[in-house]
Amino acid sequence: MTMLKAQYEQRGRVPQDVIHAVEFSEPELKPGQALIEVLAAPINPSDILTLTGEYGMLPPLPAVGGGEGVGRIAALGPETKGPAIGQTVLLPVGCGTWATHVVANAAHLMPLPNEADPKQLSMISVNPPTAALLLSDFATLQAGDWVIQNTANSGVGGYLVQLAKLKGIRTVNVVRRESAVAGVLAQGGDVVLVDGDDLAARVKEATSGAAIRLAVDAVGGMGTERVASCLSEGGAVVNYGAMSGEPCAVSPRNLIFRDVSLKGFWLARWFRVAPKAAQMALYGELAQHITSGKLNAPIHATYPVSRIKEAVIAAHTGGRDGKVLVAPDS
Amino acid sequence: MTMLKAQYEQRGRVPQDVIHAVEFSEPELKPGQALIEVLAAPINPSDILTLTGEYGMLPPLPAVGGGEGVGRIAALGPETKGPAIGQTVLLPVGCGTWATHVVANAAHLMPLPNEADPKQLSMISVNPPTAALLLSDFATLQAGDWVIQNTANSGVGGYLVQLAKLKGIRTVNVVRRESAVAGVLAQGGDVVLVDGDDLAARVKEATSGAAIRLAVDAVGGMGTERVASCLSEGGAVVNYGAMSGEPCAVSPRNLIFRDVSLKGFWLARWFRVAPKAAQMALYGELAQHITSGKLNAPIHATYPVSRIKEAVIAAHTGGRDGKVLVAPDS
Repeated sequence: MTMLKAQYEQRGRVPQDVIHAVEFSEPELKPGQALIEVLAAPINPSDILTLTGEYGMLPPLPAVGGGEGVGRIAALGPETKGPAIGQTVLLPVGCGTWATHVVANAAHLMPLPNEADPKQLSMISVNPPTAALLLSDFATLQAGDWVIQNTANSGVGGYLVQLAKLKGIRTVNVVRRESAVAGVLAQGGDVVLVDGDDLAARVKEATSGAAIRLAVDAVGGMGTERVASCLSEGGAVVNYGAMSGEPCAVSPRNLIFRDVSLKGFWLARWFRVAPKAAQMALYGELAQHITSGKLNAPIHATYPVSRIKEAVIAAHTGGRDGKVLVAPDS
Repeated sequence: MTMLKAQYEQRGRVPQDVIHAVEFSEPELKPGQALIEVLAAPINPSDILTLTGEYGMLPPLPAVGGGEGVGRIAALGPETKGPAIGQTVLLPVGCGTWATHVVANAAHLMPLPNEADPKQLSMISVNPPTAALLLSDFATLQAGDWVIQNTANSGVGGYLVQLAKLKGIRTVNVVRRESAVAGVLAQGGDVVLVDGDDLAARVKEATSGAAIRLAVDAVGGMGTERVASCLSEGGAVVNYGAMSGEPCAVSPRNLIFRDVSLKGFWLARWFRVAPKAAQMALYGELAQHITSGKLNAPIHATYPVSRIKEAVIAAHTGGRDGKVLVAPDS
C-alpha cells in the first residue's frame, strides 16, 4: 500500500514552495500504537503560518503539515488497548495530519461518532472550540444578549454564529465584502454588515441601541477599534487573529473613557491550562452538534495528499466560500 | 478686593485663544458655603483637553478652567459647619480652580495639612492617585518586582517612580529624549531608557531578564506595543493617555501567543465606583507623603490668574522640566 505525507524540510515565505508529498512505507507498529487511515484534514490559517514560520509554536524540521483531522483505526500494534479497528477518532492535534496515514499512541485517541460526516468532523479540533470559548470565556452572556464579530465569514466566524444561535445569543456579523453577506445570513447571523468607518452607527441602528458587551476580532489594525467602538461601556474585545497583518488598535477614548479592554485568545494555551474533563466535555458537546447537523462549515474543495501544493494555494487564496480539506478521492 | 477667574465661553483648537481672565465681585455666601482663597492650581493635560473639547467629560459653557488645586478658607457663610477659617483644603475636583477665589460647599471640603507646601499639595488630586492606582489595581506587585512605564518624565510618571520606590518596587522608565534621562534618575528611577524599536532587548539586559508583569502606557501607537513586548507572558498593559495622538497598538503576537492584555484607567471612573472611605484613605496617605517631602513634582513656572494665557501656552509647550501652576505672585 502506498502511503503519502505532505512534508516540509524548511519554512518559507511561499508555503506551496516548501510543502510536498512524500511516500513512506507502512510503519511497523509498536505496542500501544495505532495506524490510523486519515479520512479528512482541513487547511487552517494557523497551518499556513506554521509553514511560513509566523505561528507562535513551530515544530522541529522536517515536519508534516496539518494540525487537525479525523481518521479511522486501520491497525493496532501488539497488546494495544484503545478504540477498536474501524472506530472514527480525532487525530492528535499538531501530529501532521496532511497524510494518508498517521501513527499515534492509541490510549490518547478520542473516539468520535462513526455516523457523523468525517469531513465535518475533521474540522472539530480548532475552530469549533475556539468559537465556543470566545463566546463563553470573555463575557457572561445570556440568551437575548448581543455579540459582535468581524471576519464573520471565516471558519471560526461561521461556528460562532451557529453556537450563539443554539444559546439564543444574537450576533452582529461584520464582513469585508458585500459578496460575503448572504453566506453569513444563511448560517443564521442576525445582523450582517460590511465593515467601514461608520460601523458603530450602523450597528446601533441595526440593534436598536442594545448593549453589546463582547466583540470578537480577527482583523486587527483599525478593524479592532471599529468593533471596540460598537461595545457598551466596560465591554471586552477578544482578538484571535490578524487578517489585516497589523497590530490591534484601540483608542484611548475606548480604553480610558469607555473602559473597554482587549485580550487575546489562543486555543493552544487553553489546552495547557484547562482540566482534561473540561476539554472532553466541550468536544463531546461539539461532536453531538456536528453529528446532528446543527454545526457545520462550508467546504470549498477537497484535494488528496498527492495534490498538496494545489490545496495550499487554494487555502490561502482570498474570496473562498469555505474550507479547503485534504482527503482521499472518494 | 479684586477677584479673578480664568473663564472660557467656547472650546477651541487653540486653548490660549479661548481662555481669559475675568473679574468678579466678592460673592455673598449662603448658609453652608465657604469662600476659599486659592493658593495654587496646576495646569494638567486633561485641563488643556477640556479647553479644546477633546476630553471625555466636558462642563457646560461658560466654564472656569482648572480641575484641581488647594486653597485656604477665607470666609464662611452663615451657620456653616466645616473646616475653620485659615485651614488648608483641597478644592473640589473640576470646580474651576484657575481663580483667585472659589466658593464651595464647606461640608464636602477635604482638609489638608497646613504645614505642607501648598504648591506641592495643589497637584495631589489627579496625578498622585493616578500613579498609585496604576501601580495597585492592574497587577499584584510585591517588593522586588519590576514595573515598566513610558512618559516616565511626565507628572504621573514622576509620582509613579517615587511611589514604587516607597513600596520597594523597581521601575524601568522609558522616555522619548536623552535630555529627560537625568531628571528621572534623580527622582529615583532604577532603569531609564530612551524609547526605540530595540526597547525589549535593552530592557531584558538592564533587568537581567526579570519578569515584568505590568506596563504603564501614556504614549499609545507603537509605544504601547513596545512596552507590551517587554512584559512576561500574561502581563498587563494599562493605558492612561496618548501623547502620540494615536490609538494604542498591541500585536496579536503579544495578545494571542503571550497572553498580554490591555486596559485603560480613568481616575474619574474610580471616583464614581470606589467607596468614599477608600478615596479618603488614599488621599490621606498621599498627603502624608507630600508633607514629609517623600512625594513631590518639579515645578516649571508659576503664573497668576491675570496671566492665564501665558500659563496655558507654557503648559502645552514641549520640553518643560516640570508642571506649570496658577498661583498668586508671592
